[in-house]
Amino acid sequence: MAHMTAFDSDTYTARRQEAVELVKQRGLGGLVIGTGAEFAYLTGSWTSSHERLTALVIAPGGTTVVAPVTDIQSLGLEGATDVEVIGWRDGENPYKLVADTLEDGTVGLGSSLTADHVFALQALLPATELASDAVAELFMVKDDEEAVELAKAGAAIDRVHERAADLLQPGRTEREIADELHALILEEHESVSFVIVGSGPNGSDPHHDFSDRVLEEGDPVVVDLGGALPSGYQSDCTRTHVVGETAKAPKDFLEAYAVLERAFDAACAAAKPGITAGELDAAAREVIADAGYGEYFTHRLGHGIGLSGHEQPFIIAGSDVVLREGMAFSIEPGIYVPGKWGMRIEDIVRMTANGIETLNHTRRTLGVNDA
Amino acid sequence: MAHMTAFDSDTYTARRQEAVELVKQRGLGGLVIGTGAEFAYLTGSWTSSHERLTALVIAPGGTTVVAPVTDIQSLGLEGATDVEVIGWRDGENPYKLVADTLEDGTVGLGSSLTADHVFALQALLPATELASDAVAELFMVKDDEEAVELAKAGAAIDRVHERAADLLQPGRTEREIADELHALILEEHESVSFVIVGSGPNGSDPHHDFSDRVLEEGDPVVVDLGGALPSGYQSDCTRTHVVGETAKAPKDFLEAYAVLERAFDAACAAAKPGITAGELDAAAREVIADAGYGEYFTHRLGHGIGLSGHEQPFIIAGSDVVLREGMAFSIEPGIYVPGKWGMRIEDIVRMTANGIETLNHTRRTLGVNDA
Repeated sequence: MAHMTAFDSDTYTARRQEAVELVKQRGLGGLVIGTGAEFAYLTGSWTSSHERLTALVIAPGGTTVVAPVTDIQSLGLEGATDVEVIGWRDGENPYKLVADTLEDGTVGLGSSLTADHVFALQALLPATELASDAVAELFMVKDDEEAVELAKAGAAIDRVHERAADLLQPGRTEREIADELHALILEEHESVSFVIVGSGPNGSDPHHDFSDRVLEEGDPVVVDLGGALPSGYQSDCTRTHVVGETAKAPKDFLEAYAVLERAFDAACAAAKPGITAGELDAAAREVIADAGYGEYFTHRLGHGIGLSGHEQPFIIAGSDVVLREGMAFSIEPGIYVPGKWGMRIEDIVRMTANGIETLNHTRRTLGVNDA
Repeated sequence: MAHMTAFDSDTYTARRQEAVELVKQRGLGGLVIGTGAEFAYLTGSWTSSHERLTALVIAPGGTTVVAPVTDIQSLGLEGATDVEVIGWRDGENPYKLVADTLEDGTVGLGSSLTADHVFALQALLPATELASDAVAELFMVKDDEEAVELAKAGAAIDRVHERAADLLQPGRTEREIADELHALILEEHESVSFVIVGSGPNGSDPHHDFSDRVLEEGDPVVVDLGGALPSGYQSDCTRTHVVGETAKAPKDFLEAYAVLERAFDAACAAAKPGITAGELDAAAREVIADAGYGEYFTHRLGHGIGLSGHEQPFIIAGSDVVLREGMAFSIEPGIYVPGKWGMRIEDIVRMTANGIETLNHTRRTLGVNDA
């Protein structure tokens, strides 16, 4: 995806202009953004230079990219008249080039910069701070162009999920099913972000991917799928199914699943502009805790999504981040009883003036063979 | 590759023991290693937790992993009796858990930790430094088990290169060829690390991947391929070919290619234990510079390779790192004339007591159709 440019160059110029304004407002000497989703948001380029520094520098006076001379052609920034591109060769000090473009004041470092780059910049700059909250201000609210891409991503993963349930047949392994889902995601996306097929006790590990475990009648199965569109925007959706008929699932699983659905619905109902991320997390968590499963909901309620699969806002206990119109994030309560089973329901939603718009629409039928 | 464990658990225990000794020798309060190749080297696990901290903490008193409670099952560390695993839940402060396991003294942070984790640790710890050189001391010299894996990786990419030249036919696009090479790499590896097909002027960008450019008779083409074995060890090899017959290539290209071969051979001859990385870089660079192409050799001569495609030692001008028996690295001189053509020859080599052992063995014939 090195050359991905989802939108017109004007879009990226406008985003960089907004970033320059943010730097001025906050009185920063500048922002230094490493490669990854933040860099792609501001340039349209997914270039990655690993141990060789490539950085976007947003200073009050303007924008610079410092990159290995070997990588400049692949940045795709020829048309960006507001960006000065400075190439460096092996043996030169790229951090000095970055420092030279910055102005006085604390410098914000983007969250994706790795420790080797962070320490080298800290050695040259008088004061640095983490810039993740500042940069998130730029990308958390999705504009209409981005909303279209996220809706396309939602529809793409929905088409995969519609075909997923039928794959969950007794006698097949999680790995066989995951391989097929991998191919189905690629039919609908540019790349696969992850495939989780957690059957029976494996479902109780929220980050289990898949194994050689053989599915049996009545097994609950957590299926969590995501990919990236050619534009870079991500999909992410989870459904929980039962192999065979719902009635064959463990009774305690079915009782808990009813609680999970209520928790999911409670979060969707509570999600209005002005609520904090912490309050939204609590809306689902209270339902689960009141039913006695609180200790088994071991993760946050959700996460922002865009060019990155997990990004701000994080929907997590204690967060004071106010959820605003245009933000896109997951709502994904789960219940995980170690060694027995797990369950999760996850949709991506986008905040509107009145509440959420859901970007995933596949059925939540439990039993694969239910009439 | 989340569950990759290439070797016996004893191997990883011994590596961690060596790391504890290093921490003691250097008088550090500990090392904090983020997920990635360094973490995999010391644990056998490729777990990645992105914005949620997973870290291996090597303190003088022993080893701890701090990880999200949701990820503990997938770490595969149940059998490692020398590692204490501490799970944390969303809302808890994992950095405090890390700090509690460290002792007095400067703390080394692994190079793969991202800025969000670095700043959070720096806020709690009295003094930190980049630990990349220290950690590289642990992995730079490859043992016999690793040498076997690197030799397998070399043979795997050789089998791909043997089939690559025939794909370079006039009328085909770089992208068509790259797609086939992608599939061929997957036949021989667990995953694809990169595919570069740079024909004609595209070859002059060392990090060009591939495009819709149509190959023509006489085009020079740079083909640089790499993948990872199930063990995680990487391959990386470059050949330059000419579409059709060598004689149809541009005359200046053919003259320069003879220089490139001499530079490559000079580096191979100079590579003996005790030479510094900077001296080795110079051995190739002098040949190219003396022939008048110095400004067109725009990158370092090479890089270490192991669980990471690019790692220490870096074979770069000015480096005082002494190359020792057991180190594995690339030798890859190149000449890139912007807008015209590029060329690179790259083999992975391993240092022995007397000189290098080359891990790639495919022919370097230029013309695909040469008799």
